[in-house]
Amino acid sequence: MIRFYNGKVMMMQRGIETENIEVWTDKDKISFVGIPSAEDLQNRHFDREYDLKGNLLMPSFKNAHTHSAMTFLRSYADDLPLQDWLFKQVFPMEAKLDGEKVYWLTKLAILEYLTTGCTAAFDMYFELDDYVKACTESGFRSVLCGSISGDSSALERLENNYLKYNGKSPLISFMLGFHAEYTCEKELIEGVGKLAAKYKAPVAVHNSETAKEVRECAEKYGVTPTKLFDSFGIYDFGGAGFHCVYMSDEDLNIFRDKDVYAVHCPGSNVKLASGIAPITKIQSMGINIALGTDGPASNNCLDMFREMFLMTGLQKIACNDASACPADKVLQAATIGSARAMTLFDCDCIAAGKQADLIVIDLDQPNMQPLNNIGKNIVYSGSKQNVKLTMCAGKILYENGDFFIGEKPETIYKKANEIIGSMKNS
Amino acid sequence: MIRFYNGKVMMMQRGIETENIEVWTDKDKISFVGIPSAEDLQNRHFDREYDLKGNLLMPSFKNAHTHSAMTFLRSYADDLPLQDWLFKQVFPMEAKLDGEKVYWLTKLAILEYLTTGCTAAFDMYFELDDYVKACTESGFRSVLCGSISGDSSALERLENNYLKYNGKSPLISFMLGFHAEYTCEKELIEGVGKLAAKYKAPVAVHNSETAKEVRECAEKYGVTPTKLFDSFGIYDFGGAGFHCVYMSDEDLNIFRDKDVYAVHCPGSNVKLASGIAPITKIQSMGINIALGTDGPASNNCLDMFREMFLMTGLQKIACNDASACPADKVLQAATIGSARAMTLFDCDCIAAGKQADLIVIDLDQPNMQPLNNIGKNIVYSGSKQNVKLTMCAGKILYENGDFFIGEKPETIYKKANEIIGSMKNS
Repeated sequence: MIRFYNGKVMMMQRGIETENIEVWTDKDKISFVGIPSAEDLQNRHFDREYDLKGNLLMPSFKNAHTHSAMTFLRSYADDLPLQDWLFKQVFPMEAKLDGEKVYWLTKLAILEYLTTGCTAAFDMYFELDDYVKACTESGFRSVLCGSISGDSSALERLENNYLKYNGKSPLISFMLGFHAEYTCEKELIEGVGKLAAKYKAPVAVHNSETAKEVRECAEKYGVTPTKLFDSFGIYDFGGAGFHCVYMSDEDLNIFRDKDVYAVHCPGSNVKLASGIAPITKIQSMGINIALGTDGPASNNCLDMFREMFLMTGLQKIACNDASACPADKVLQAATIGSARAMTLFDCDCIAAGKQADLIVIDLDQPNMQPLNNIGKNIVYSGSKQNVKLTMCAGKILYENGDFFIGEKPETIYKKANEIIGSMKNS
Repeated sequence: MIRFYNGKVMMMQRGIETENIEVWTDKDKISFVGIPSAEDLQNRHFDREYDLKGNLLMPSFKNAHTHSAMTFLRSYADDLPLQDWLFKQVFPMEAKLDGEKVYWLTKLAILEYLTTGCTAAFDMYFELDDYVKACTESGFRSVLCGSISGDSSALERLENNYLKYNGKSPLISFMLGFHAEYTCEKELIEGVGKLAAKYKAPVAVHNSETAKEVRECAEKYGVTPTKLFDSFGIYDFGGAGFHCVYMSDEDLNIFRDKDVYAVHCPGSNVKLASGIAPITKIQSMGINIALGTDGPASNNCLDMFREMFLMTGLQKIACNDASACPADKVLQAATIGSARAMTLFDCDCIAAGKQADLIVIDLDQPNMQPLNNIGKNIVYSGSKQNVKLTMCAGKILYENGDFFIGEKPETIYKKANEIIGSMKNS
């Protein structure tokens, strides 16, 4: 059992901060939230008593869209239009990947997630056994998203993976998914819709990331990607659309009616010049919003603080309204929204019985002072530098700059550099 | 003397990185840059030999537009249009400031500058004696910018300050300036032009930050702020325009012809929904660009890494071109450009004889790996967390999270919170 005391707690589901409340964890769960009596404390044995010293305990961030192993392409293929970047740089380099490479490159990403207070990734990639191994060895949570593309022969693999990875580990689950409309044949999309119906399961997919994607879909099918997906029942049991930059009113109505999450990736959308997603409109329609970094090839970092500032900043610019997308909406998206988009309903906030996916934010830093409004400080001023501790499923994986994921960071950096070196030269 | 060795050096003025080169500092200056002979090393006594361990030494960032003491308004008055924010929130609270408050609030800002690898601020504020005391006590460099407004009676104060603060300390200088067109009477602007001519001195001023400012200037004077300023000779000896969001071609021609710096403040411009400055166009015209955070009331943080990503990200979106504003241009603006906009010509890059204003970037962090391209890593992935050491004028003011500015951070945080508390209640 671990006791967090003497600090502030931002529980997210009720109010933004409270004082004098303690949070206890037992194994992987939060076992107590409240003000304990002297008796409660007397009879309790804690493995560790963590004095928050006035700092903030809050739910960890969840990264609702990423391709973790793409760390190898960070700062490798910048400054290209999305389609060129994807087809000329990313896909040829990806063809050189194998399981062992994915394993090490994923571990590199996990280190970075921990530095930004993130304990779970909604990851769309391949070499899943090796990805899962990297996550479970590290103690890091992940929801795998089906990443199939091409023709309908991939459907069998998707279904097998769905059955294989769900229930494999408490840290791992698998959501039906496919890459995107523009990389998949009609029969494949149709087939995923049938799997969604068969398993009454949500589906996640890249959706309306670029104007080109939407235009070409209209040319091919006469409808938007969302309408096309809907016609095949893709979203009949909910799910998520990654990016959602170019959404029609009809598209958004489908998202609202079918409880689909719009996963916002502002860092990637600016870096690849994709556009600014209509988040303010999406919010006003009551559609759920989650936040993700996208992969490190397109961002290039995995920094939830940067994403949070971009989420509000871009809306203020796009709406010409400095009051657009206020800080509390952003915090909601980065914690509760992202967790629920990944169906991690037990990792979304601080309450007894929930998973102990928690972070400690250092308020004794100049960017958090004075304490006019802690929530706004985090969104408008926060940085990785403020993350003192990251706990996933009750285990401390990062504290005061040190990592506790088994492997030493130096080993991971060395492997990552060797891998990129060998791929460039092959 | 301090010896930096065994790392990478990004000198800025020639190429982006070199290996095996050492940098030595002597008192406030860089005394040697190169590969020393065994003999050179043998005869030399160093006060400290800093093993870079493969990390990066580079010129520090300079913040080319800020109002440091406005830390007290951080997260206090967010989510309002610029004019309301300024006239209804900022100005009434500022009226409650005094010298002692400015002293402590400035120290808070200095702590934050150091965490982001920034060693100099181009500061526009008041209570200058107290501001200067805070800077010089801390060992932090600053260029004060005249901040007068109202009628021409303020001119005497501006001239007195110009004469008083230049040459007062090696860390302090003063540039002629006034707040903005919309807060100054015509006679005051005209008077500043005469002072510029008298001292053959550059002038810095808020310029074309909002569409409203430019529109109302046109209604009042029939010209843009830049044209108005130019008609009074404001820029006859160079200078700077803070923000430059709404600039006509004629305005930009004036900037180019008179060697005026466009000081870009993207964080503030998005947060206050001011707009996106035409940086790509400004760059293509060969106009000098500097980078600043603006004050913490409008940003809300003082983070040069965030500004760097925003500078490139917003251009990619505004130009619909993922290759817009590449990383090297951003690094130039944040180091050389900002230094020169402040007339800190001896603080702009790493070379023998220049001021020792240096930072060490920790490359042994997940967001800096793999080392595909260090410059791009800094701009696209960098964060405060990567700043290992900040040196100003040869003195280490920040290292591994510890501050060496005399005052303890806890004292400064306590004072800042007391000050904001007393102001809210008065």
